[in-house]
Amino acid sequence: MSGDNRAPVTVIGLGMMGAALAGAYLKAGHPTTVWNRSAAKAAPLVEQGARRATDVAEAVAASGIVVVCVFDYTVARSLLDPVRDSLAGKVIVNLTSGLPDEARETAAWAGDAGARYLDGYVMTVPPAVGLPQTLLFYGGDKEIFDAHEETLKVLGGNSVHLGTDPGIAALYDLALLGILWSTLTSALHGFALVGSENVPAAALMPFAEAWITHVVLPTVRGAAQQVDAGHYATDISTVELNAMGLPKMIKASEAQGVRADLMVPIKDFLEKRVADGHGADALASLIEVIRDGDR
Amino acid sequence: MSGDNRAPVTVIGLGMMGAALAGAYLKAGHPTTVWNRSAAKAAPLVEQGARRATDVAEAVAASGIVVVCVFDYTVARSLLDPVRDSLAGKVIVNLTSGLPDEARETAAWAGDAGARYLDGYVMTVPPAVGLPQTLLFYGGDKEIFDAHEETLKVLGGNSVHLGTDPGIAALYDLALLGILWSTLTSALHGFALVGSENVPAAALMPFAEAWITHVVLPTVRGAAQQVDAGHYATDISTVELNAMGLPKMIKASEAQGVRADLMVPIKDFLEKRVADGHGADALASLIEVIRDGDR
Ligand SMILES: NC(=O)c1ccc[n+]([C@@H]2O[C@H](COP(=O)([O-])OP(=O)(O)OC[C@H]3O[C@@H](n4cnc5c(N)ncnc54)[C@H](OP(=O)(O)O)[C@@H]3O)[C@@H](O)[C@H]2O)c1
Ligand SMILES: NC(=O)c1ccc[n+]([C@@H]2O[C@H](COP(=O)([O-])OP(=O)(O)OC[C@H]3O[C@@H](n4cnc5c(N)ncnc54)[C@H](OP(=O)(O)O)[C@@H]3O)[C@@H](O)[C@H]2O)c1
Repeated sequence: MSGDNRAPVTVIGLGMMGAALAGAYLKAGHPTTVWNRSAAKAAPLVEQGARRATDVAEAVAASGIVVVCVFDYTVARSLLDPVRDSLAGKVIVNLTSGLPDEARETAAWAGDAGARYLDGYVMTVPPAVGLPQTLLFYGGDKEIFDAHEETLKVLGGNSVHLGTDPGIAALYDLALLGILWSTLTSALHGFALVGSENVPAAALMPFAEAWITHVVLPTVRGAAQQVDAGHYATDISTVELNAMGLPKMIKASEAQGVRADLMVPIKDFLEKRVADGHGADALASLIEVIRDGDR
Repeated sequence: MSGDNRAPVTVIGLGMMGAALAGAYLKAGHPTTVWNRSAAKAAPLVEQGARRATDVAEAVAASGIVVVCVFDYTVARSLLDPVRDSLAGKVIVNLTSGLPDEARETAAWAGDAGARYLDGYVMTVPPAVGLPQTLLFYGGDKEIFDAHEETLKVLGGNSVHLGTDPGIAALYDLALLGILWSTLTSALHGFALVGSENVPAAALMPFAEAWITHVVLPTVRGAAQQVDAGHYATDISTVELNAMGLPKMIKASEAQGVRADLMVPIKDFLEKRVADGHGADALASLIEVIRDGDR
């Protein structure tokens, strides 16, 4: 796209993330209009060439593409609701984080207002916005994603459309966040275990790193295949064997003065699987318990 | 070491792992004596040149180095107790898995019998025994580890002595197992989340893989440094921010019919930290809650 026909973009919300988004559009040469509740946050962007809108109505009127990145969906809706009548034909790109159902409701609301809607998740921190490898998940209107792909990729070269369900990006985001929270917490558990014998985390870390790369990742990869196949055969590491290991883990942690709370649900999942007669299955079969929630 | 002075080694316990250990010694040309409760398991090793001992006493008498790899420490002790008087001067290498305290008690017991003791953990599956990159953790008698390093490394080129505490290898083993269990379970949680919208695990997996490598691992690495420094400053991801995310995760999981049990202790840890007035700290500070068990 030549400089002259770069699409005008509006960014509503100039917190840490919103400011980075607006900055990326300015850097890429898009005519960029910005608005933030606390107007002072617009100043550095105006210096870089952004146009400051005095209210949300003016911000929405300025561009065909309206990027929204505020605290949560409730705030996003509270800002857009009053200007509902001016949204027909606009492309709303909501990069606010929240729940799949919030994304779905907001998509329906935008549809009713005659707008096109994409729900996105920036899978990194603000300083990484605009890099070629930066990952953004999108769900919703595929036609709009395709039509504006180049403009969307200004925010991150690895922008992917996951499906037409507007909640799908929130779901992928949650899936990855869960892995981060749980792996980090278990690593802290490990640091606490060796720390109870005055061993620094730095002594465990190289082993943890090799373990995550060469043992954990291949195990997760294998589990993905078994989950999709629905077959959980194993010669090596059965549910039953691991069900014996978890109580030992909990006992040993407590003996070292380390809280084993994170291990308790894993123990419970394993014991449920054994009780259900699936002790000889591979660990991947725990998904049968996990997906057994009441929807 | 030339072929002629390879140390004679005895392996007690020829289950999946013990058979692999004995096989590695035979392959490396060590005079190898084997014993197993079910004698039939010795046959393939005898064919490869192993000497079969008719009882534990004969097995112990045959070599200066006695490797033990059985079901658990209770079994190991039940086999060695009756031959206690013949253990003086022997090197016992216990590769049976268990708890730090079991390792410590067994080391003390061996010391009383006049034996030298190493407590080890094979950090892989039997087919990987004997490879240059294979990791074994050892704790206990450092002099003995150094004196027999070459013989020990026949089982895995990456054999490391972690400390003189005989329980330290069990502790490192638990630390890494916890990371495996927890990361795998959270990945299954993620597969269940996207699966609830009929997305296969294979669709999430490439993102999970990049996420673990480029986001999770650096986060864990950073946490290790913060834990050792005892400083938990952050500009980006505070306890407070994540404490708001966890209830959303749980709610969204349940809305998709996915059990969020694994996320509950993480939420509790975060909320405890916020309640204690440390909401502005980095996630690594959760270790302050985790290590707060009653020893
Ligand atoms: N920061 C990250 O690393 C990161 C990464 C991925 C996703 N995200 C997501 O991006 C979104 C924004 O995050 P952030 O890091 O930019 O947060 P932030 O720095 O706290 O900014 C919050 C933004 O929301 C606005 N806001 C809050 N309440 C408002 C209200 N009642 N009315 C109008 N505006 C309101 C704030 O306006 P004021 O300036 O007037 O307070 C500000 O623009 C969140 O959904 C977050 O989960 C952030
Ligand atoms: N397999 C792995 O991937 C792996 C990896 C790392 C660590 N380990 C550890 O290595 C150890 C052995 O595991 P494995 O995989 O070899 O298990 P296994 O195949 O089930 O073998 C168990 C061994 O213990 C013996 N045994 C059990 N109860 C006994 C008793 N009452 N008296 C005498 N011998 C008894 C068995 O003898 P019989 O043959 O007579 O039953 C067999 O030699 C365990 O501590 C395990 O945690 C295993």
